Amino acid sequence: MATPDYQKLGFTTIKPYLDGHILVIVQDRSKQRNSWNGVVPQELITIFDLADRDDRVRVVIVTAELASPAYCAGADISGGWDILWRPEEEKEGEHAHRDSGGKTSLAIYRCRKITIAAVNGHAAGVGMTGMQLPFDFRFVWAGAKLTFPFVRRGIVPEGAYLLPRLIGVSRANSLLLTGGTFSASSPLVRELYHEILPTREEVFPAALAFARELAATTSQISIAVAKGLIQNPGQSIEENHLYDSRAMRAMGGSADGAEGILSFREKREPKFSGSLSKDLGSWFPWWQVVNTKHRNAKL
Amino acid sequence: MATPDYQKLGFTTIKPYLDGHILVIVQDRSKQRNSWNGVVPQELITIFDLADRDDRVRVVIVTAELASPAYCAGADISGGWDILWRPEEEKEGEHAHRDSGGKTSLAIYRCRKITIAAVNGHAAGVGMTGMQLPFDFRFVWAGAKLTFPFVRRGIVPEGAYLLPRLIGVSRANSLLLTGGTFSASSPLVRELYHEILPTREEVFPAALAFARELAATTSQISIAVAKGLIQNPGQSIEENHLYDSRAMRAMGGSADGAEGILSFREKREPKFSGSLSKDLGSWFPWWQVVNTKHRNAKL
Amino acid sequence: MATPDYQKLGFTTIKPYLDGHILVIVQDRSKQRNSWNGVVPQELITIFDLADRDDRVRVVIVTAELASPAYCAGADISGGWDILWRPEEEKEGEHAHRDSGGKTSLAIYRCRKITIAAVNGHAAGVGMTGMQLPFDFRFVWAGAKLTFPFVRRGIVPEGAYLLPRLIGVSRANSLLLTGGTFSASSPLVRELYHEILPTREEVFPAALAFARELAATTSQISIAVAKGLIQNPGQSIEENHLYDSRAMRAMGGSADGAEGILSFREKREPKFSGSLSKDLGSWFPWWQVVNTKHRNAKL
Repeated sequence: MATPDYQKLGFTTIKPYLDGHILVIVQDRSKQRNSWNGVVPQELITIFDLADRDDRVRVVIVTAELASPAYCAGADISGGWDILWRPEEEKEGEHAHRDSGGKTSLAIYRCRKITIAAVNGHAAGVGMTGMQLPFDFRFVWAGAKLTFPFVRRGIVPEGAYLLPRLIGVSRANSLLLTGGTFSASSPLVRELYHEILPTREEVFPAALAFARELAATTSQISIAVAKGLIQNPGQSIEENHLYDSRAMRAMGGSADGAEGILSFREKREPKFSGSLSKDLGSWFPWWQVVNTKHRNAKL
Repeated sequence: MATPDYQKLGFTTIKPYLDGHILVIVQDRSKQRNSWNGVVPQELITIFDLADRDDRVRVVIVTAELASPAYCAGADISGGWDILWRPEEEKEGEHAHRDSGGKTSLAIYRCRKITIAAVNGHAAGVGMTGMQLPFDFRFVWAGAKLTFPFVRRGIVPEGAYLLPRLIGVSRANSLLLTGGTFSASSPLVRELYHEILPTREEVFPAALAFARELAATTSQISIAVAKGLIQNPGQSIEENHLYDSRAMRAMGGSADGAEGILSFREKREPKFSGSLSKDLGSWFPWWQVVNTKHRNAKL
Repeated sequence: MATPDYQKLGFTTIKPYLDGHILVIVQDRSKQRNSWNGVVPQELITIFDLADRDDRVRVVIVTAELASPAYCAGADISGGWDILWRPEEEKEGEHAHRDSGGKTSLAIYRCRKITIAAVNGHAAGVGMTGMQLPFDFRFVWAGAKLTFPFVRRGIVPEGAYLLPRLIGVSRANSLLLTGGTFSASSPLVRELYHEILPTREEVFPAALAFARELAATTSQISIAVAKGLIQNPGQSIEENHLYDSRAMRAMGGSADGAEGILSFREKREPKFSGSLSKDLGSWFPWWQVVNTKHRNAKL
């Protein structure tokens, strides 16, 4: 198990710290409205990969300082799209390009811990996609201005896979195909959020309190497997039933399963000790993780 | 066609009765808050299989007596998870286990009649999953306390396939990954329900009136095929178009199709005579039903 | 590129006209409440195929004259279902039938332009399915009576693929399995709509203003590719990431991508010049379009 000291890893675009079982990642480009330069996605991928393997971490929160009016203003394209291309991929050809928003989304989506975006400011572009959609929960300020401007920039939205699954194609079309700007309480976007807070100041504390409750009461193995069942349900209800059954039987016989029963009988909160690094059976994961680094010559 | 006398089948955990074309299943463990013992899922599977093959039955309603504060309090785990394991599966190994909530869900989901959960009390665990998600419609009391506590019990939620399809992944995450308790009118859960009633007393009568209207006005073949098109749409819109076209042509030439036209012309309610046991073509079902009893050694 | 004069193509059931970049299709059977005869679907398929290939067209709107109380009253079945069968298919057998609602849905769904249904009156049957579900956006009059009556006519609903994806299975069941009539503001149906307008008179103007804004500000290539990513996401988030990355790199290097950057820097609305007929790379489409004309003997 990795047990890094998150504050000493030399990040330049994020300021992470561990608060009990909660890893808080504060974006550190307030002056640039937390827009992405080329380093941001690399650091996010690095830290979510670490959090995934660090048993101490049960919840990860990403948020912004209130000094920035934006939670994340999107990619900094003032110098052109070039910020998004990488030399080694460019050398190989256009087919070798891997979108940095999408790569970051994958790292967050695959993280087996609870993930929360505490959106305490405006959000645009990758600030809506990679910085929100792959998270399990989103908390938002009611006054936040939210936009997926891709079709008004001559490019395309990363997030076309996740958004329709989160809130349905009807709402996803309204957001992705217009490039319009919406307030968080608009019926077109509000279903994306677990909670909508009246002021910017309340967003992070609300997310943190929620994180603390989940860290204290849920089994990290249960969470990892439940996320797996939602993200990789199989092709049919029957296939899902087989995965669920396999997990159910294994966990019923585990220490966390026993603590689940005991705490229920004793009418108290459970104290789960199971850890992903030691207590996951070989049946997890049941899906084949697609390797996106492979260069698919056909594309 | 099966034509059982539902009141004489010797059930011990449910009290079923046929009211015209409506099979009402009243849970019969009010003193135990309708929690599941090992017999409940077996009896539910039996009766839904019977209802599926009984042409008299057009709608199935599951409900609770008001004597129980809970519609269904979940599995009775006071004696441990052991209630869930079955000796013949245990002998074979963990991979042979089949979750009883999931097996019951499959039986209800596959029943080709209209299915309604009349949730006139609180619901927890399998009271939310197997006892609600596989139904076509859910009616609920506004004051019901609803919870999917699995991740707080050290196990995993059955229902990870159905819930995201019913109300989207954003809401499903809020319910499945928190283990929290929600009121039926919470924006996080209310989309699960066809109707939310102010009092417990109103839930079953509302469901029954709705059932009577559907039993009187819909073709049971149309319902079975429409459920099939929703549950097994195929891999693409084009594939669904082929299944829909096949069904449309067959039903246009059927007695129910003729009655549909005639009643429309005569501006009266239709009286459909078609039955699943006699009038379904060999094109139904068009999907391969996965056999979950098969022991998949790889899992 | 096709550049037809839409007003001179001899349509008998629709009155189309080009207004700048917007193709407006007014249904022309007000006396029949815009019900479908056998010609309507053929003309709709023809015009959506033309619009797809006409670079001038950026948005297509379908609407009704206010002289008709209905936006579209469904198929005219006063003469029986026969209106739906076609002689060449009948000769071959039932398996050769292709539902006209479904065929029309496919043509609209596959059109790579922005599509809007301006539902300024009541809608029933194919007036709900083919005439609304395959569109990107739906605008509706709050007073519209909306119904999917299929299960009350002894047939089945086309639309079982699209509706659950648009608003979830819970709401789709409420609409498709009841055959009930709902007002546009009902919580069971309202998520289908981008905007709900208080009066019939406001629906088309609102849709037109929206269309003009999108036509003026979005790249038609971005729209086509974004629609492709939503409609054909691939089997996994990783697969979607590969398609998104391929598109992102190509478009970042395109004229529209350059104009996206330039207009952003100059803080003005973009003027995109890219066209589908000339500027789409061979990577589009990335999916295999299923040929539904093929007679699948197994069905």
